Amino acid sequence: MKQIQGGVCAAKGFKAAGVHAGIRKNKTKKDFALIISEKRAAAASTYTQNLVKGAPIYVTKENIKDGYASAIICNSGNANTCNANGIEIAEGMCSLVEKHTDISKNDVIVASTGVIGQPLDLTPMENAMEALVDSLSQNGSEDAANAIMTTDLRKKEIAFEFELGGKVCHIGGIAKGSGMIHPNMATMLVFVTTDVNITPQMLQKALSADILDSFNMISVDGDTSTNDMVSVLANGMAENPVIDSENADYAVFCEALSNVTTCLCRSIAKDGEGASKLLESRVSGAKDIKNAKLVAKSVVCSSLFKAAMFGSDANWGRILCAIGYSGADCDVSKVAVSLQSSAGDILVCKNGSGVDFDEEIAKKVLLEDEIIINISLGDGEGCAVAWGCDLTYDYVKINGDYRT
Amino acid sequence: MKQIQGGVCAAKGFKAAGVHAGIRKNKTKKDFALIISEKRAAAASTYTQNLVKGAPIYVTKENIKDGYASAIICNSGNANTCNANGIEIAEGMCSLVEKHTDISKNDVIVASTGVIGQPLDLTPMENAMEALVDSLSQNGSEDAANAIMTTDLRKKEIAFEFELGGKVCHIGGIAKGSGMIHPNMATMLVFVTTDVNITPQMLQKALSADILDSFNMISVDGDTSTNDMVSVLANGMAENPVIDSENADYAVFCEALSNVTTCLCRSIAKDGEGASKLLESRVSGAKDIKNAKLVAKSVVCSSLFKAAMFGSDANWGRILCAIGYSGADCDVSKVAVSLQSSAGDILVCKNGSGVDFDEEIAKKVLLEDEIIINISLGDGEGCAVAWGCDLTYDYVKINGDYRT
Repeated sequence: MKQIQGGVCAAKGFKAAGVHAGIRKNKTKKDFALIISEKRAAAASTYTQNLVKGAPIYVTKENIKDGYASAIICNSGNANTCNANGIEIAEGMCSLVEKHTDISKNDVIVASTGVIGQPLDLTPMENAMEALVDSLSQNGSEDAANAIMTTDLRKKEIAFEFELGGKVCHIGGIAKGSGMIHPNMATMLVFVTTDVNITPQMLQKALSADILDSFNMISVDGDTSTNDMVSVLANGMAENPVIDSENADYAVFCEALSNVTTCLCRSIAKDGEGASKLLESRVSGAKDIKNAKLVAKSVVCSSLFKAAMFGSDANWGRILCAIGYSGADCDVSKVAVSLQSSAGDILVCKNGSGVDFDEEIAKKVLLEDEIIINISLGDGEGCAVAWGCDLTYDYVKINGDYRT
Repeated sequence: MKQIQGGVCAAKGFKAAGVHAGIRKNKTKKDFALIISEKRAAAASTYTQNLVKGAPIYVTKENIKDGYASAIICNSGNANTCNANGIEIAEGMCSLVEKHTDISKNDVIVASTGVIGQPLDLTPMENAMEALVDSLSQNGSEDAANAIMTTDLRKKEIAFEFELGGKVCHIGGIAKGSGMIHPNMATMLVFVTTDVNITPQMLQKALSADILDSFNMISVDGDTSTNDMVSVLANGMAENPVIDSENADYAVFCEALSNVTTCLCRSIAKDGEGASKLLESRVSGAKDIKNAKLVAKSVVCSSLFKAAMFGSDANWGRILCAIGYSGADCDVSKVAVSLQSSAGDILVCKNGSGVDFDEEIAKKVLLEDEIIINISLGDGEGCAVAWGCDLTYDYVKINGDYRT
């Protein structure tokens, strides 16, 4: 499986664009994105489990009920959530696609991200729609990736090439997500496109399985957003034999999908609001996968541990503490922990108690910007990985005054 | 019920002391505390639900198995947790009490707080024990309250006087707790003393019920400590008719206990690590108490909302978001929210959507140091209150480098 350029336009038949419509005041920041497929595509989505849901989620659910879609439209700068007229505005965005292309408004996935509870005005998008459609191109993934960003500092884009039934296939995605990141069944806006030929049912199955190990395993701040959504469009233009069961091709497709989602997960965690470090918690030896996941996620969610990582302080007691309250069934007297980065790997805890270690070496390991926390539970075969980031002054700064 | 001075020495027959033993390097900071009762007292405790538990918790549980105790010994600066010889050290602390007083080592409640995973040396405590016992006095509550503090900035002490069966009774407590505060069945070190005559069974019943509405409803950072413990000693020296059932006197005692614990809860939340504001989330109209508690606690736990409060930003969308992922069964389209402080009360959300409000007035309300978030769910009669604090630069500073 080969990494390639092109993001959501890497697959055959997809074009994308991003422009500044004026939803955001900063005129240099794109805030309006469109992705279209030349051919109607199998569509699958997962959504936030927050009871408070953005209006676009209701409209998207309705539109892909039949398993198909041809376009994704998205604005940043306003989440269109907790607004009395939210559904109307989200449907209005779909109608804009119908008006300016040959795609039915019922074949549109719609998404919004930004501040909650402020009315979203359709006018700037109406005015910008022609320019958006005109700029659709096979090189447009980067513009789209930029347009969906909010407090993100880095665009998140990835693509892979692989083979199915002798046909060259492609899959690529873009994502936004920096704060309010603690997904439950989905994450803040991820759009994946592929030219693989697959039924809507198998596509949804692959996506629903994938997110359990990818987006549901990241956390920036423990806050589950109201607008989380992961959508995949598969337009079949690679002309591989259709995937309609859990056969060998399905397994290859799942691997390709996982490559895309895992990469985007790491990007989202690393670009968490204010973050200076990516934290990767690798748990092995758990009773089962469920317990491994509880431990892995608890560690990357601990505010205390996250702050210690910002300070490059090997305060492993906070890791043990987070394991202890994770809800996992494990024997704490068997736990071993090592801290690892490109600068080395240092054991800090064995049999649940501290071991003598060189604080200088530990500091060197923790000064790197990608830290792996290896946790061995010595209790079975369950493994899991979770991603998070450190807690920094900038997180507080960004969120102390987000609206103004 | 009258608020009085004296903390843990307000009740008849109790003395306390706090000295610097040298566990902490700072010689002006007391780090070793003792509370004793002239008469063997009914004892009740609740403990952390973290699987990783401090060694003192195991020893305390064993010592008060019979329902009685006469002393509480506690050090700060080291949690005596995740150490291979932790039990031995905790038992050693109890033996010090037996050696220097007429109290049996099996009648001692022992507690430790501070960094996890660093061996605790008994020597400084052995050397300081004579001075500690010599300084026991009826005015010693403040010294004890100071000695159990870690990153706390303010000592936490309260007492009340009330009447039972014609007898004047007293109850008072001290607490420490600033970081790693998200108790589950208990909180970081709280010691309560009373001269009420009550059986150990009824005392435990009263305490176990009380913490569900007090310590289990506060959060500073979502991290449940390994050493959380709330202990009550009741020595009966008020000579009221013994409370041995859920009678009218029991109700009065529970009210007195609740006065002490609620006050200490607010103090702990307000003195959360780095905190500049106390947040009190008051939920009404929930389907039941369980749902009210889920909502109240979810709001004070949201990092995003906590950061917005630091910035005095009326970002109510984050409150709705936290209600939505709280796990509570509620109809978000009925939610109303107002923000209140000594500077006013301002409605920001009604029927789940934003209302027009004056940002200047909202700012004025939020610039105060005690903020009440009134959440009305319009769904029933369930009410709950939770306490927390804002998330500030100082939280990150304190926790970025705690050990060194």
